[in-house]
Order: sequence, then C-alpha cells, then structure tokens
Amino acid sequence: MSAINKKLNMTMLCDFYELTMGGGYFQSGKKDQITYFDVFFRDVPDRGGYAIAAGLEQIIDYIRTLRFEEDDIAYLRSRKLFSEEFLDYLAHFRFSGDIWAVPEGTPIFPREPVMTVRAPAIEAQLIETFVLLSFNHQSLIATKANRITRAAQGRTVLEFGSRRAQGVDAAVSGARAAYIGGCRGTACTISDQVFGVPAGGTMAHAWVQMFDSQYEAFRTYCEIYPNNATLLVDTYNTLKSGVPDAIRAFNDVLKPLGITKCGIRLDSGDIAYLSKQARKMLDEAGWTECQISASNSLDEYLIRDLFQQGAKLDLFGVGERLITAKSDPVFGGVYKLAAIEDADGTIHPKIKISENVGKITNPHYKRLYRVYDRKTGKAEADYITVYDETVDENAPLELFDPDATWKRRTYTDITIRELQVPIFLKGELVYKMPTLPEIQAYCASQVDSLWDEVKRFENPHNYYVDLSQKLWDLRNTMLHENRD
Amino acid sequence: MSAINKKLNMTMLCDFYELTMGGGYFQSGKKDQITYFDVFFRDVPDRGGYAIAAGLEQIIDYIRTLRFEEDDIAYLRSRKLFSEEFLDYLAHFRFSGDIWAVPEGTPIFPREPVMTVRAPAIEAQLIETFVLLSFNHQSLIATKANRITRAAQGRTVLEFGSRRAQGVDAAVSGARAAYIGGCRGTACTISDQVFGVPAGGTMAHAWVQMFDSQYEAFRTYCEIYPNNATLLVDTYNTLKSGVPDAIRAFNDVLKPLGITKCGIRLDSGDIAYLSKQARKMLDEAGWTECQISASNSLDEYLIRDLFQQGAKLDLFGVGERLITAKSDPVFGGVYKLAAIEDADGTIHPKIKISENVGKITNPHYKRLYRVYDRKTGKAEADYITVYDETVDENAPLELFDPDATWKRRTYTDITIRELQVPIFLKGELVYKMPTLPEIQAYCASQVDSLWDEVKRFENPHNYYVDLSQKLWDLRNTMLHENRD
Repeated sequence: MSAINKKLNMTMLCDFYELTMGGGYFQSGKKDQITYFDVFFRDVPDRGGYAIAAGLEQIIDYIRTLRFEEDDIAYLRSRKLFSEEFLDYLAHFRFSGDIWAVPEGTPIFPREPVMTVRAPAIEAQLIETFVLLSFNHQSLIATKANRITRAAQGRTVLEFGSRRAQGVDAAVSGARAAYIGGCRGTACTISDQVFGVPAGGTMAHAWVQMFDSQYEAFRTYCEIYPNNATLLVDTYNTLKSGVPDAIRAFNDVLKPLGITKCGIRLDSGDIAYLSKQARKMLDEAGWTECQISASNSLDEYLIRDLFQQGAKLDLFGVGERLITAKSDPVFGGVYKLAAIEDADGTIHPKIKISENVGKITNPHYKRLYRVYDRKTGKAEADYITVYDETVDENAPLELFDPDATWKRRTYTDITIRELQVPIFLKGELVYKMPTLPEIQAYCASQVDSLWDEVKRFENPHNYYVDLSQKLWDLRNTMLHENRD
Repeated sequence: MSAINKKLNMTMLCDFYELTMGGGYFQSGKKDQITYFDVFFRDVPDRGGYAIAAGLEQIIDYIRTLRFEEDDIAYLRSRKLFSEEFLDYLAHFRFSGDIWAVPEGTPIFPREPVMTVRAPAIEAQLIETFVLLSFNHQSLIATKANRITRAAQGRTVLEFGSRRAQGVDAAVSGARAAYIGGCRGTACTISDQVFGVPAGGTMAHAWVQMFDSQYEAFRTYCEIYPNNATLLVDTYNTLKSGVPDAIRAFNDVLKPLGITKCGIRLDSGDIAYLSKQARKMLDEAGWTECQISASNSLDEYLIRDLFQQGAKLDLFGVGERLITAKSDPVFGGVYKLAAIEDADGTIHPKIKISENVGKITNPHYKRLYRVYDRKTGKAEADYITVYDETVDENAPLELFDPDATWKRRTYTDITIRELQVPIFLKGELVYKMPTLPEIQAYCASQVDSLWDEVKRFENPHNYYVDLSQKLWDLRNTMLHENRD
C-alpha cells in the first residue's frame, strides 16, 4: 500500500506517544484538564540573526479537519492498548481550544513563543507533531529563501528543487514557503495550481539532445514559445556553440517578430566567467535585453560570491540547497507545556528543567510583544510577559538581558505590537488568512524593519528577546524550587 | 488554499519545463519519438561506500494513476502557452512505456543506471520530477537509516523524527524508507496505519509535568500501560529523582503483576554517563530486564561514540538527523537521456557532455549486472553493458577501471545477476511489489553481501562499477566527436 494518490487523514500524523498519553489522561481523570503549550525554537539555522515563521495555513487546515475516521479507530483498536471508552471519545473528538500565533512571514527569534495552544490535555497533546512538522518545515524553507533572496540583491530567485525535495509535501509546500521568504516563483507546477506560486520553466538538456543539432533545438523552441524563450546553453560547449547557437536562433526567429526579451541559462561550468563572456557576446549581437540565468547548486554564499566576481546574472534558479535547506536542514521548533488551568480558572505555571541549560523552558501563559523605535520604525527588541501584565507604549520601557540581568536599557518613543494573534477561539477559526502575495509582502516589510546588523550572514547582532521582571522572577523561583 | 487534507494529483507534480518541452515535442512532430532515460546518482551521501535504493513503490503508484484531470487541463489552458491540440493530447494521456529498475533495498553505486525508462518523449519527460523526487528522498533516508542501524550493532533503532521532517510526506514515507534501511519501527502513527511500519511510543515531558509529582506520573502510566511502560526520566533530574522514581513505580505497580519487562528513556544530558549509572541502579534494584533507550539528536557517529564510552543502551530513538539525513540531506539522483529509437527499431545513443567531468553521462540503452564471487557470496563489482551484449557467468570476465583503463582484473568462479527488473512493459505493471518486511530483509541480505571494506564509514573501498569494452568505446568515441 502506498501514500501516493490517496487522501491521508492528517489526524493520524501524530507521534504514537500522543495517543498513549491521551489514553492515560483519559483514564486518570485528566481528560478535561486545560493545558497551555508553547511552540518556540532554540537556534536560528545557519547562525542567522532571525528566522521567518511559516506553515500556519496548513496548521489551520489540519485543526479544522481534525477527526478520527472509522478506519483510524479500527487501527487504534487493533493495537490492543486503548480502552473502548477512550476509542469512543476519540471517535467524537474535535479541537475545542484556543490557538494564538504570529502571522506567517513574521521574523521570529529563539525562545519566544511563536504559537500558544490552550486546550484540554488530550487535544493539545495530540496536535503536537503536525503543528511542529508544518511550522518547522515551512519556517526552515522560508528562512533559507529569505537569506538567498537577500543575497541576490533584488534579482529574481526561483525555487527549482522539487526533484531533490524530501518527499511530495517538501516540494509542494516547500515552494510555498520559499515564496513567502522572497522567491518570485517555482519550477513546481502543482505549487502554482494549488497555492498560486507562479511556476515557470523552459527546457532541460534532453530537449537539446533530442534534435539533430543544438541550433535546431533552439530554433524550434523559439518558434513554439517565442515569448518564453530561455535556452539552456551548456549541453555541449557553452561559449563555443551554446551561446552562438542561441544568438543565431534569436536572430532567426525572434528578431523578425520584433521580440527583444529572451534568455539563456547556465547550468554548469564556471558560472562567473561564462556569464561575463556570454553577456559580452549577447550585447555585441544586440541582445541586450536577453537575461542570463544560473542554476548550478546555488545558495546565498555562492550567489554573493558570484556578484563579487562581477558575474552578469539576472536570475537565479535555486534547487537542492534551498528546498532541503542543505547547509542546516533542521528547524528545531519544540512544543512544551507552559501551564495548566484549574476548573476555577487559576493558571499554574509549569517548567521543564534540563541538564542542557538551553533546553529549560519559559513557564506560564505568556504574551509576546515587539518594540519598535517610533522614529526609525526599526524593531528594537521583543518582550515576553506573563499573560496578565499590561504593556504601555506611552511609558518608558526598561528591558534587561535575562542571562546578564545587569545589562539594562530603557526605551522611550516606541510603539509596541503584540505579535501573536488569535487563530482559533473555543475551536472556532477566527483568523482570516491573508493571500500568499500578502504574506510575502508582509514578510518583506517586516524584514525591512530589522536593523542590518541583525540581517548580516556573519555574526549577526543578537536581537534582544527579553522577559518581563515578573516572568523572569517566576522562572528563577521555579528553577530553584525544582532543583532543590 | 492548502494542500493538507486534499488529494493532490501527482501528475501535476512536474517541473513546468516538462510541460513546455512536452508541448514542444508535440508541435515539432516528436510526440511519438521513443526515448531512453536513465536514473543514476553521482555521489554517495556522507562519503559512504554504497547507497540503498528506495522509493519504487510510490513511483509505481504514480505511474499507474498518471492522468490529467479536467481542472489540471483548465489550469494549463490558463497559462496561455499550450495549443488546444496538445491539451487534448494531455487529457487522454496515459503512460504507455517500459520501466526497469533495481528492487527497493538494493545497495547501489554511483553512475550506474538504477532505473531505465523507455517511452515516447513526452511521457518519459513528464515523469522526471516525480521519479527523481521519490527515488532521491527515500534512497536518502534508507541509506542514512542503514548507516545508523549498522552503528547500533544489532540494537533496535526507531525512527522518531516526524516533527522535524521536511513536510508531511517526509515524515510518512520517510518512516517507510527508514524501515527499509533497517529501523525496526517509528513514532509516526500514520506510517504504521498506511505502510505497516510498527509505531510505538509512551510519554513526553508534558506527561510528567501534568502530575503533582514525577512518581505519580510514572505510577499512573505503569498502571494504565503495565506492558508498555517506558518512562522518560529526565524531566527534572535524571539520577537524583528520575531513575529512583521509575524504580519505585516499577516496584509498586509492575512487580506485583509479575512483569519484568519495562524501560526508561534518556533524552538529555550526558547519555553515556547517565546510562551507565542508570544501568547500575536498575540492576541493583532487580530490574535487569529494564531496557534503557536514548533519544537526544543521535546519528551513526554519536551512537558509535556511545558504545566506545561503554554506554549501556538497548534502544535508540533517532529523530531529526535521520529523517532529514541532516549531515548530507540531498540525494543527487538525476534523469538523463541515454538514447532515442527510430520507428524501425534502430537505437541511437545520446550523451550529455559537461565542463564538469563528473556530469558526463554513459550513453545508450544499457544493462546493469552485479558480479558475485561464487565461493564467498560477496559482491565484487557491478558491470554495465550495452543492451544487446550477452554476459556469460561461466566464462572468465575481465573488468577494467573506466578512468584508469590499464587497471584490469579477471573474475572466474562467479555468479552474475542482472539488477534491473521489469516494472512496467507497454504501460502495464508487470512487477509484484514485495511486502515491506520482505524489502527490509532483502536489503539486509544484500548489504551482507558487500565486503566490510565497502561498508566502513571512513574512506570506504571504492566499489567497482565498470563498463563493458563496447560501452567504454562508444562513450569515448562520442566524447571525442562532440568536443571536436
């Protein structure tokens, strides 16, 4: 049996322990125990200064359709671990809780809650895997795409990696995430059909090889697609025959039609050198509007280097190193219990201690704010409070480093924006998803609000993510109590 | 719109250039041109000595259901690039060609054809992306899993990485591929339901935090799941409270039931040290059958190191570094034109030259053989011939290095097995898929047939993949012709 061409019930995409724990909560009378879980991550991939949040839309779809079908219950029964009462509970299970999250495209930073789930224990526990999977995957790719498109300095970057993607969804949703991060399009047809990520492409080497000569292959392509003629020039010898044959085909087919827009693509060899030579040949032949694209195992570092070498490139097709985030292919988002709530509404903070200090959590139900300088519009710091604190942007705000608490700074003339917005309340979707182009534009504007020091690739400035005094005190107290 | 909870038509998971080329073949009269494409890869991930082929089952499902639906045609029409004649052709399109491939679980080596497609140009071109995606992804994970399970020296390895997988399919099919490579199970419930990869799991830190005390959390779990009690002991302090609380819960709940099988899991801290201490404590308390599992960012190198430090571990849960193949997350399989066939059956070899020598292809329709020493049963070399050559295992076989042709060796007393088997003939499926446990067992037996020198992690022996004299001569001639 196979998962391809079959609609899978994502409800079953859970870690098995979420079901055993669910059954345990059910049997130990904790079924209706209200819990608060935070999603956060610990390190920015590639030692970058920020990440880009993505994957929320798929989480929303998942939550909305969360239910166990008959064959799911039958499978669970076959495992001989669960009581009939619990299975019956699952059969009628719906998500009834609240979810707050930062919108897709938001720059995010380590250890801040980018999503908070408030729900009965079984519900909150069950969604852990899918929530993390979608958030981790798409944030990984959006973050990488944002790095690569910034390296391209305004030139078009297209996502070309489907064939090297880690599975179907990695290709399809990966192209979506790459678009959020700044790519202008994809080679992946279905991502256009499903998500509206503009898909494009012209030819592979096989097209060139299929004809008796390279010139014939190029001419035929220009005749059929005169307005979309980007010719792949490296099948045999780029400068000796590839570019000359392309120019000849442009001259013979496009020129009589009055078409001046066309392109060539370099897919191997020394791209910097070849692009400069090709540019010269094209310009001398009068094809100054012919765009040169490159597509050979590129990433942000190689693109930056190409510019340093004076490469003449207008467009980048980026494949495996984007679609797998090859240089750092794991986005380490986690899902941790932050509090539980009594029937009378009292909220009890919870903490996870660890030998690894970086793995210690921030306890309690919290709120996340971004502090902007009112004059520059730049983001200065993020600020996490306990849920019941008030934040006043008209008063001076003193922030301090949670690790080095003597480092303090007072901000005045600021605006403060709460980053998490309500997505589900009492199980009902209350969030209107923006369109994909809106998300891309929002991402670009939010990245613009970061200082360049946060955006550089090497040793970026450590953006401040600070705790309120109340939250810091609570965390400190709980750490001491639990270690005694 | 979202791709979750929606059945996608994988036919549209193609690179857009496959459609523009398809339209081009259609309009230039090459629609029925028979083509031969090879799938091969260039480098073994992690500088290993061999890779494991996987992903064929999903390719089979894809090919069987390959068709454009009405809404697909409508989308393509909206792109305003394709003629109505071509769209009509696509609407009636089915795969009518032949596919040969190595079975899943086969150890494979660089530059040998692991799959060959013979089909009309448009068909063969269209399937490129999905074929590569499935083969690349699952071979990547199967190969990594095989490395990790070998490092575990017979201990159980479970796949734990869904939450860090690169999308839904990376989790679901990734667990399948991990099983092929040697993992005994997964945490991913749906992979059990869909593929039969055994899914298991017990508790997260949240379970422990949900109770007033760690002991109560452990005792409750043992009461509900006495036969499946693996307790996570690192929420607060592993040796001071985690292991003692676990022993107390085992004593209070399992002992009276006569249950001796149980487990603890270490998820942070110094696993080597903690496992040795925990083993001592468990043994002294009489829980000698209690298994100790570890699950903190493991991979083949860390597992090997744990053994070198004398760690007492029975089971490994391997997450992000397996499910993303973190240390080398791209499997570089490619799909290249090897030949075209005239209407009269004459086959014309094709070659792709490149400035990058490693990117030059082996031309022609070929066959792939594995040569085994009859006495040891060990695989000695792979051997690629032109399709019409005969291979006789009863005659001495002289092989030579295709790069250093003076290096020659004659094999006698050998058995020879053709590695590619027919999967589709004239569009009909002729292959009976083995079950997943059969594939896993086949993989293990085939890895056993490799010399240890090929299997070591550091500087493995370069397994011979040799060309027949006829194929070598052809390639050499074509290289010279094309560069003149």
